[in-house]
Amino acid sequence: MHVTGLECVHCGRTYSTAEADYYCPACGYHEGILNVLYDYDAVGKELNAAALAGNRNLSMWRYLPLLPISAPELIPRLQAGWTPLYEAPRLAAELGVARCWIKDEGRNPTASFKDRASSVGVVKALEMKASRITCASTGNAASSLAGFAAAAGLPAAIFVPVRAPQAKVAQLLVYGAQVFSVEGTYDQAWELCMKAAAQFGWYNRNCAINPYLIEGKKTVSLELAEQFMALGQDTVPDWVVVAVGDGCTIGGVWKGIKEMHRLGLLPRLPRILGVQAEGCQPFVAAWRNRAGLTPCAANTLADSIAVGHPRNFAKGMRAVTESGGAFISVPDEEILESIPLLARKGGVFGEPAGVAGAAGIRQAAASGIIGRAETVALIVTGNGLKDTQSAIRAAGRPVCIRPEIEEVQRAVSAGAAA
Amino acid sequence: MHVTGLECVHCGRTYSTAEADYYCPACGYHEGILNVLYDYDAVGKELNAAALAGNRNLSMWRYLPLLPISAPELIPRLQAGWTPLYEAPRLAAELGVARCWIKDEGRNPTASFKDRASSVGVVKALEMKASRITCASTGNAASSLAGFAAAAGLPAAIFVPVRAPQAKVAQLLVYGAQVFSVEGTYDQAWELCMKAAAQFGWYNRNCAINPYLIEGKKTVSLELAEQFMALGQDTVPDWVVVAVGDGCTIGGVWKGIKEMHRLGLLPRLPRILGVQAEGCQPFVAAWRNRAGLTPCAANTLADSIAVGHPRNFAKGMRAVTESGGAFISVPDEEILESIPLLARKGGVFGEPAGVAGAAGIRQAAASGIIGRAETVALIVTGNGLKDTQSAIRAAGRPVCIRPEIEEVQRAVSAGAAA
Repeated sequence: MHVTGLECVHCGRTYSTAEADYYCPACGYHEGILNVLYDYDAVGKELNAAALAGNRNLSMWRYLPLLPISAPELIPRLQAGWTPLYEAPRLAAELGVARCWIKDEGRNPTASFKDRASSVGVVKALEMKASRITCASTGNAASSLAGFAAAAGLPAAIFVPVRAPQAKVAQLLVYGAQVFSVEGTYDQAWELCMKAAAQFGWYNRNCAINPYLIEGKKTVSLELAEQFMALGQDTVPDWVVVAVGDGCTIGGVWKGIKEMHRLGLLPRLPRILGVQAEGCQPFVAAWRNRAGLTPCAANTLADSIAVGHPRNFAKGMRAVTESGGAFISVPDEEILESIPLLARKGGVFGEPAGVAGAAGIRQAAASGIIGRAETVALIVTGNGLKDTQSAIRAAGRPVCIRPEIEEVQRAVSAGAAA
Repeated sequence: MHVTGLECVHCGRTYSTAEADYYCPACGYHEGILNVLYDYDAVGKELNAAALAGNRNLSMWRYLPLLPISAPELIPRLQAGWTPLYEAPRLAAELGVARCWIKDEGRNPTASFKDRASSVGVVKALEMKASRITCASTGNAASSLAGFAAAAGLPAAIFVPVRAPQAKVAQLLVYGAQVFSVEGTYDQAWELCMKAAAQFGWYNRNCAINPYLIEGKKTVSLELAEQFMALGQDTVPDWVVVAVGDGCTIGGVWKGIKEMHRLGLLPRLPRILGVQAEGCQPFVAAWRNRAGLTPCAANTLADSIAVGHPRNFAKGMRAVTESGGAFISVPDEEILESIPLLARKGGVFGEPAGVAGAAGIRQAAASGIIGRAETVALIVTGNGLKDTQSAIRAAGRPVCIRPEIEEVQRAVSAGAAA
């Protein structure tokens, strides 16, 4: 393991991994988020172009030298990461950019990006011989943790807001997690989970306060860098686009990009576009006003990014400011419209938060934030099967017919192609 | 392309690929199912252990020399196949077998095994410059075709029975297919689709009568062979287990196994266990009675195998008889119970038909069909997110609590672990 320590993003103090479990003891968990530090010279000796070319591990664990794991034998069997990257020329034309690639994170074991974080979380819990692992989640982190905990045979206790979509809750129960459906918001579920973890000594997988989780998330960018370099150095996109809730995902995306650049495996740094829903845009507000965080209400159907009080504001904001990128917000109607758009033009069915980035690209291109000659990589963070209610709202209902050829004939003549 | 011709499974006549599109002109589509023939000597020069070891294509298309495609540039971008194979020791112990592996087909682009067939179907339609592609389906073939047609920019017309699960219908609509929800059974939807294909000149993707589709399906076995050989020759399982509806999937599974054996890439032939639901078991009945097909009603919640009139009876029956395997049926309650069992002991969330094989293994082991010292590979054909209603029936509902730590304490004290 090449981890050299943990650094507080607020006060800058550094700690050994033995000195701090989750957050900076001096700053507390609201501010004292820790960043994992590595000996990049040592990492580079193991993680370089030659080593990657010969690496047959087709999961996020191909980047083991850049992950904070000391016991790789504990890695669960479920194969997270190494998701496909598709170029989507018809989608690029629709969105108004020169080229567009889709990174389909819905292909992960429990059908979302969060599997990258959960697989690290479960290994850390096993390393610490925890009796149980817990998290609070709008849905995807929860179902992901439930799946990876089941694969590892580790009990899990999970807190979700009552409005989490049914498919995600079904996943939790099927995987055998103890599920607390909290009558309140995600923010209330999060605070309750923090208390429970402290009181019962459960391993805390909450991404914002557990510095190791974002290390799993960053692997999406390690893959993006490797996949684009395989396509040719000139394909490295101008922008990487992702929806933003807690700030952990966008923070991880940016950390991974910087690390591949530092290791000489990515020739230039893309900018980051963070996309929020209009009904819940604390990052956009803070970025526009050059101000700190003001928690707000969470009014959006994109449940995965319905986070009024982002727990990783510091890392989320840094991703956009350091990269020279932007935050943007889009109305729910445009998020809904993006579900069939992405499916029909790009072949990928994403959940609302997963496709929100497409709506963001369109708006950023229209407003000149992204130039028409620029290229984008869109991270679709969750599978559309996670929320079919929203999909049906977006795409309508089928034509019902009796089993008679005349009825087909009538529909065809009417030009009823969907 | 190493295809040498098409052979009727009923009368044995052979045709060139120019002489027959779909079924044997002499026998008609009820009986005259065609089998694709290859020049295996020519195939073996391109597809061998050395070539596979150096092949970086991580999709079903790594087996291109064994696929009936003349225009590989038309292959859609969506990455089908090369799904993970997991060993599940805790599941093996539960089911009563020595070792058990899970092939997770829910990881395909539209979350089912059918993507292997649809990707071939779309290429064939494009090769023939068809204006539209059509199929009838209980759900998965439909959503799969819709996704691959969208990725290729090819219009699709799809016939589903009204009771197809909502998630699958949502996929169809999102991908932009023209959907006919037929007030009747799958069998009626199938006949209607056949008529429409003939009348409107649409390319017919129905697996039973289109000989090329099963060629896509067989790739699951090409992968199984390669994956087991990578684990070591002694891991090749005694049994390969799969749920059975139309008979196409099990037929494809067996064809792929035989081909890898013939090419010298698999040292011995596993037996095939075909699993049906008790409420719809025409294969089991015919196999037990050593009789022909008697179509029956379809009463099972496992919608993907609710096929009372299997359209590929010949290939399905042959898979079991040639391999020295067995057919078995399981009640719906055992199928439902297998959803959480597979998720908790194996880490894979499957749809009812996808997990039916697990129930079949347990019963086959209990009745001595599978020996306690024998090993099995279970093909989980569809993702559980395709049918969350059944999952919730199987796994229950979560505990609702107010956001107060006392409520968590109470649940923990009550030992309310799910």
